[in-house]
Amino acid sequence: MDKILRINMSDRTYQFEEVPEKYRYMGGRGLTSNIVYDEVNPTVHPLGPNNKVVFAPGIVTGTAASTSGRISVGAKSPLTGTIKESNAGSSWSQDLARMGVKAIIVEGYQQDGQYWIIHMKWDKEKGAPAVEFLPADEYVGKGLYEVFPKLYERFGKHISISGIGIAGERRYLNSGVVFNDIDGRPSRLSGRGGLGGVLGSKGVKFIILDRTGAPRVPLTDPALFEKGRKKLVDALRNHPITKPGGGLNTLGTAILVNIINEVGGLPTRNFRSGRFEGAANISGEMMAQYVKERGGGRMGHPCHPGCIIQCSNIIPKPDGTELVSVIEYETTFAFGSNCGIDNLDTVGQLTWMTNNFGMDTIEMGGTIAVAMEAGLAKFGDGKRAIELMEEVGKGTPLGRILGNGAATTGKVFGVVRVPGVKGQNMPAYEPRAIKGIGVTYATSTMGADHTSGYTIAPEALSSGGQADPLAVEGKADLSRTFQEATAFIDSTGHCLFIAFAILDIPSGFEGVMEECNGVLGTNWTTDDATRIGADILKVERKFNEGAGFNEADDRLPEFMYYEKLPPHNVTFDVPDEDLDAVFAKM
Amino acid sequence: MDKILRINMSDRTYQFEEVPEKYRYMGGRGLTSNIVYDEVNPTVHPLGPNNKVVFAPGIVTGTAASTSGRISVGAKSPLTGTIKESNAGSSWSQDLARMGVKAIIVEGYQQDGQYWIIHMKWDKEKGAPAVEFLPADEYVGKGLYEVFPKLYERFGKHISISGIGIAGERRYLNSGVVFNDIDGRPSRLSGRGGLGGVLGSKGVKFIILDRTGAPRVPLTDPALFEKGRKKLVDALRNHPITKPGGGLNTLGTAILVNIINEVGGLPTRNFRSGRFEGAANISGEMMAQYVKERGGGRMGHPCHPGCIIQCSNIIPKPDGTELVSVIEYETTFAFGSNCGIDNLDTVGQLTWMTNNFGMDTIEMGGTIAVAMEAGLAKFGDGKRAIELMEEVGKGTPLGRILGNGAATTGKVFGVVRVPGVKGQNMPAYEPRAIKGIGVTYATSTMGADHTSGYTIAPEALSSGGQADPLAVEGKADLSRTFQEATAFIDSTGHCLFIAFAILDIPSGFEGVMEECNGVLGTNWTTDDATRIGADILKVERKFNEGAGFNEADDRLPEFMYYEKLPPHNVTFDVPDEDLDAVFAKM
Repeated sequence: MDKILRINMSDRTYQFEEVPEKYRYMGGRGLTSNIVYDEVNPTVHPLGPNNKVVFAPGIVTGTAASTSGRISVGAKSPLTGTIKESNAGSSWSQDLARMGVKAIIVEGYQQDGQYWIIHMKWDKEKGAPAVEFLPADEYVGKGLYEVFPKLYERFGKHISISGIGIAGERRYLNSGVVFNDIDGRPSRLSGRGGLGGVLGSKGVKFIILDRTGAPRVPLTDPALFEKGRKKLVDALRNHPITKPGGGLNTLGTAILVNIINEVGGLPTRNFRSGRFEGAANISGEMMAQYVKERGGGRMGHPCHPGCIIQCSNIIPKPDGTELVSVIEYETTFAFGSNCGIDNLDTVGQLTWMTNNFGMDTIEMGGTIAVAMEAGLAKFGDGKRAIELMEEVGKGTPLGRILGNGAATTGKVFGVVRVPGVKGQNMPAYEPRAIKGIGVTYATSTMGADHTSGYTIAPEALSSGGQADPLAVEGKADLSRTFQEATAFIDSTGHCLFIAFAILDIPSGFEGVMEECNGVLGTNWTTDDATRIGADILKVERKFNEGAGFNEADDRLPEFMYYEKLPPHNVTFDVPDEDLDAVFAKM
Repeated sequence: MDKILRINMSDRTYQFEEVPEKYRYMGGRGLTSNIVYDEVNPTVHPLGPNNKVVFAPGIVTGTAASTSGRISVGAKSPLTGTIKESNAGSSWSQDLARMGVKAIIVEGYQQDGQYWIIHMKWDKEKGAPAVEFLPADEYVGKGLYEVFPKLYERFGKHISISGIGIAGERRYLNSGVVFNDIDGRPSRLSGRGGLGGVLGSKGVKFIILDRTGAPRVPLTDPALFEKGRKKLVDALRNHPITKPGGGLNTLGTAILVNIINEVGGLPTRNFRSGRFEGAANISGEMMAQYVKERGGGRMGHPCHPGCIIQCSNIIPKPDGTELVSVIEYETTFAFGSNCGIDNLDTVGQLTWMTNNFGMDTIEMGGTIAVAMEAGLAKFGDGKRAIELMEEVGKGTPLGRILGNGAATTGKVFGVVRVPGVKGQNMPAYEPRAIKGIGVTYATSTMGADHTSGYTIAPEALSSGGQADPLAVEGKADLSRTFQEATAFIDSTGHCLFIAFAILDIPSGFEGVMEECNGVLGTNWTTDDATRIGADILKVERKFNEGAGFNEADDRLPEFMYYEKLPPHNVTFDVPDEDLDAVFAKM
């Protein structure tokens, strides 16, 4: 009995709509991308009145399925100009699903500079959520670490929160949609693509969910669901990367620092090298050491209830008080190696500030690196990096430049070496050293994005097969396969990290399909996953073509074709035809 | 015996090359666009090592043909990402033609932060120009009004100068290539598209020409040329717009202020209205009054030797000393109506500053208007506008934002109402009130550009036919016809303003063809003009497709489709199919 909740911020009205037949079997990214494609003209200004923000829990989100608390946020991206889906793990998604809301569509426009809280509370009598709009003025212009506790105090400890920080208020192209973590921190973000600014343009400051009393998510075939759930749990519990006490659980995603550094693909000093001499100091191993020696922190922290992997962390200061949660691999690269900073305390401080403003750490670190390239700071100067972040918070002209991301910063300061695709800065894998991920960056419907098609699994982690990172051949096919699988996984509500387990353990993959079938009443097999993923990608691609993109946009920045990357001294040499084959052969 | 001069700034070498057969009958825009298409990969970074800057005088430039001293500058544009040709009128073009140089191709890259003067002097003995590279350090970081006199002092009063100001040094996306005017001012610009930054990226500060002793431009059929020349002169001397004592000559291009204001198409306060209550104060009539009452100025000032129209001006301060030369219609709109400023002295001061930094006044005024929209100044606040320009000169973070143009400023400050196409801000005609020019803005290969296809002639000036500015029908055909004719005229070296005369007086058009035939030995008729123009446009279009543009980029900014423009309360309602038909039917 799911509904779609449509909210119009121009007049602050809302309605619950029946789910159209075509959306019935969709969830997460599949749903957000299809709604955005169906309802948003691809040529609209992303921050204008005709863009829409769509929130959708995944197909199995809110059930007992493990590691499935992802929330997809979709819109036309102000950063990339493409369609965008950015997902995060948070109880917010689970609560929304429990309240029977298959998607929220936020439309309309901020007309008077005012911000609002959308407060949704389960109404037991009506068996539906009650929605009210409350002025948010008192929370505007403040850091999220200050504001979140006030919201819990006002609305109750059991709520879930989504919203924007000052970055979204200022329409920074780097502004995320923030969600609470398991302990109520403002630290889980649909960070990429500037979706916070889109929400801000509609006058939405927070969407607060109180699901107290809401029923469980209904299952069409509970037995089948349970069978599938167990299969997936078994796979997750047995794979070396995902199991309790396994790689991600003990060292977090930053376990990758030393691995990718060894591969020669850890982007260093604005992608000038693939190896960082200070890698060990910003690694997952160092984080675990901080936690052990300093006390007060934690490795193996879940981002939402019901996760087996638990790859998040809480990093302590020297005195054992909390520095920040979480320092991901992407974050420690972004503020660490990519800025030439080898101090985890500095990385943590920058991370905290970025969370506090409601921004994406990948884009923010990449921006500081480009600013360093422009001469605004020396590579490795953590003190100056923090000062730059302070400007971002204050909203000075310099801060606004930086808040608008690496591509804008590069434009303003005349920097040619900006390592982005479609305006979005690259994540923590050097595409010259790991070619498959370069194919994904180039061709992803979202701009440079590792999560769109994580070929790193076979290229560096011996998961989902094995592939030579430096080899060119076959990388288009590899990227396509991963992009298709990812678009499906992003629709289930599962965290992408289940991929390690389900790619290597076939019963795990079967389990995911059975979970979905158990919820939806479908008869999907694992073959359907590819079809469903490809269909999503084609819709996203069609949106982008309508927005003005063509094959020429599916390229890495020019300098990566002529500048050799140490230590392997390689350029990006995947032929254009291969890049074009990713979608041409889909 | 023309040659192409190829200069490599990486090692400061040069060579004179034979003109390939395919370029033999090309000049000006036709030549720059073809060379850029042939030699520059459309996906290169415009400020990177693989872009090239091409200078080409027109086909008849350097001859006795009237009003033919235009210089075309071409490259991939950092502002728009498209191919770009921007032309200016200056003795520099005539001198280059006289020295037998059909085009200069500047390639290579600045590797050490150093700037150079390329000094070309006619060598009588060799019968060719001698080229030397001289350090330009002493001129870097200074205003062009300070530097130009020093260059004349050092190299002689008879030289011609081209180069960049601090805007190009800083790679501002708004940075022009500057040329001397007839009195040695740094006031004639290939302003649009950021080509100054491209030249700066190659380490070129100035290209100085000394043609003393160079022979005349050789004519294949001198009698035919002379016949044609006279026909054109007759047409120019008899058309009310172009004749001595005619509209352009007595009031300058700013004669348009009152005319376009009356039409309801004078963009006012960042394109919020098509009518400005202070129009009279910034009009050509007011300029003429300043000149008359204050003394010391001049209307009817030519930008290069041999122009009949002479539409430039020198505007005096209250005390009769020089305020600035020149205030064009575009300039008085950009700093005047579009910023809500109705004071010509303020407009003049802003113009002088823009020249001094080596920038485009259209983009600069549009940027200040967007900054006003963002709340950085109130519309009409001339004092604050001047302060903003000072920031641009100083290169503060705010100044760099503004120096990078209206689109970047809009991005940084989250402004949705940015009236540009492909990153280039609109000139002085509101496309909602004058639909044909909107078709040109949308479909031009150069971004929003009135000179690409000046439908204003029939839509507002009863020249080249008559068309209702508010009518939609037929505007795609009209724009195509004008775009084709323009691409041809831009190749001849003639000023676009001859179009008024040759569109209305057929013998004038014949005269232009005979001039070209007299120079080249061709047998072109007026029909060939369309063919030649269309061929140029197709090459430019192909470059842009390779750079990633498609039909979706050929649209006006979204707000013009939903926001009604006073006084006619109209939106832009030319159907997309019509826009797409401009090139589809070419």
